[in-house]
Amino acid sequence: MIFRQLFESETSTYTYLLGDEETREAVLIDPVAAMVDRDLEVLEEHGLTLKYVLETHVHADHVAGDNTLRERTGCRVGVPEQSGVDCSDFKVREGEPVEVGGIRIEPLYTPGHTDDSHCYVVGDRVLTGDTLLIDGCGRTDFQNGSAGDLFESVRNKLFTLPEQTLVYPGHDYNFRHVSTIGQEKERNPRLGLSNDRADFLEIMANLDLPYPKRIDEAVPANKQCGRGNAA
Amino acid sequence: MIFRQLFESETSTYTYLLGDEETREAVLIDPVAAMVDRDLEVLEEHGLTLKYVLETHVHADHVAGDNTLRERTGCRVGVPEQSGVDCSDFKVREGEPVEVGGIRIEPLYTPGHTDDSHCYVVGDRVLTGDTLLIDGCGRTDFQNGSAGDLFESVRNKLFTLPEQTLVYPGHDYNFRHVSTIGQEKERNPRLGLSNDRADFLEIMANLDLPYPKRIDEAVPANKQCGRGNAA
Repeated sequence: MIFRQLFESETSTYTYLLGDEETREAVLIDPVAAMVDRDLEVLEEHGLTLKYVLETHVHADHVAGDNTLRERTGCRVGVPEQSGVDCSDFKVREGEPVEVGGIRIEPLYTPGHTDDSHCYVVGDRVLTGDTLLIDGCGRTDFQNGSAGDLFESVRNKLFTLPEQTLVYPGHDYNFRHVSTIGQEKERNPRLGLSNDRADFLEIMANLDLPYPKRIDEAVPANKQCGRGNAA
Repeated sequence: MIFRQLFESETSTYTYLLGDEETREAVLIDPVAAMVDRDLEVLEEHGLTLKYVLETHVHADHVAGDNTLRERTGCRVGVPEQSGVDCSDFKVREGEPVEVGGIRIEPLYTPGHTDDSHCYVVGDRVLTGDTLLIDGCGRTDFQNGSAGDLFESVRNKLFTLPEQTLVYPGHDYNFRHVSTIGQEKERNPRLGLSNDRADFLEIMANLDLPYPKRIDEAVPANKQCGRGNAA
């Protein structure tokens, strides 16, 4: 499998490119509108054709590249069924793997950061979106987020994956690239096994975060698959 | 490939188990004498037969499990040719891959921490021993270590691997499990690209580290493949 972790520095967002070495088909997960040209260049560099774009959730911090990529490549866009968007070509649902050549992408429904959040398991890797970050997790104070749901999603779904599973987050604000399920169990200061549910709820209730800068622009645009907001 | 990162907590040492899913042959890299029973249990759990043990270098902080594993399993022990040991079954050399079923392990000669240090490239992973650690590197003040050599080994060999290559270190003292070549280029405070050779030499010359606790026991034992020091 061709695997590339691509970075957008304004919002510290990771976009993931997965490509099948035989069929040369590819999928982009969480592409950013402002980085579509870069993404297309990387696809070309590897001789890949974009088959799908997948979203982990409706993002509040950046506008998605989905619609622009669809217009420019003819790819199909998959968005979680809970996202409430009409613009996708298909719905992402747990239990319905997405296949790209020989690559099998298994969606896990992991609400908490938002009520539509999914993670994607690909072999010994899991792309965790904003559900589980390295030493952290996404905030839970908008878009029907729920700290209780996030705790259950991480503990009952992500933490049941093998410990050596590689964790590729949707963001990192400190230039870290990758972790493992075992590492997050051991040292995630919010969700590590030394904390219980009450500890986690207290941490999340006291984060005192500012109102998200781009949410009023990004969420409506992303409900339209990023339409009208390409770079 | 079956891949397990195993931890020994007294010296924060990672031992790596790689197993071929077809042939059920396995290799252990940098096993610790005190953890041989654990290692044999993990092999059994996965239904694997130990074919080889490989060392990244002659360790100064722990006694190797090589000889005990050889006595208990009949595996063959490979040690870098520069290590000056007579007890190995074969010498590890850059340019001479070690094959375990369909797994191809490519040694890279990366002197610096010690004059026999090697890293092992396995597909999209590199096991870096004490040459490159997450946000750090091994010390260079004993066993013919050389900060200049370490700088060249990291910059001219490890940093030429693809950025998404997973870095699995020989130790981590903060419970981190994995990094990438890209991450180390970006944020390793010693060897990251924002430092030049002179910066690195200055950092290494001023570490002011204590004399290694177990070096007087470990190095002579490891020159005998850990003989006489099993747990």
